[in-house]
Amino acid sequence: MYGPKYPARRLLDLVGDKWTPIVLFCLADASKRYSELQRELPDISKKMLTQVLRALETHGLVERLVHATVPPQTEYKLTPDGMRLHAPVSALCNWASANEEFLDVVHRRAESAPGSAHRGVD
Amino acid sequence: MYGPKYPARRLLDLVGDKWTPIVLFCLADASKRYSELQRELPDISKKMLTQVLRALETHGLVERLVHATVPPQTEYKLTPDGMRLHAPVSALCNWASANEEFLDVVHRRAESAPGSAHRGVD
Repeated sequence: MYGPKYPARRLLDLVGDKWTPIVLFCLADASKRYSELQRELPDISKKMLTQVLRALETHGLVERLVHATVPPQTEYKLTPDGMRLHAPVSALCNWASANEEFLDVVHRRAESAPGSAHRGVD
Repeated sequence: MYGPKYPARRLLDLVGDKWTPIVLFCLADASKRYSELQRELPDISKKMLTQVLRALETHGLVERLVHATVPPQTEYKLTPDGMRLHAPVSALCNWASANEEFLDVVHRRAESAPGSAHRGVD
């Protein structure tokens, strides 16, 4: 019923992790340099950011622009397909912003659960 | 800017993986037994399903109901908070269903990318 070909599964193959939606969201307003992305996502590792950008590139969702300056400058930009995928991602982000208190309550509940240090789904 | 307290980051702490949104989606129409969930999610491992359900329980999003039958029957049910979280998740799933062909194109592009076996973001 919800096998690997189910559309939501296919979508989660692309954005079902902690970082990809944030990177897409972050690139939606403007193309950005790697260092700018690092600044806006202060706690992402270099390895993870590179991996997310590379997967988005491979799927044709992000384009890597190399400017012929000295030293060369690299920018990451959403493609039209990346912009299209941004729609459901921004819906998610906007819902989260509108439900910030609810999210706090849910997280606090897990933090105070008996016998459990905070554990998310990894 | 998009640090750990950013609302979308908090939301992704809850649903930012390949399975949690699907499990929430699957429980939205009715409470279900573990074996029913396994049937509807044919390729989820027992370990992963247990982990997802436990995290949802810890966050107060899923309730585990044990019926006093012989043998006892256990059902998983969305709580009102789980139902609330179902809203953004179902928006994601519905968007995916409406954009199935687009998702196919994006996935095929990655499968045929030069020199790369299919790789998603893990």
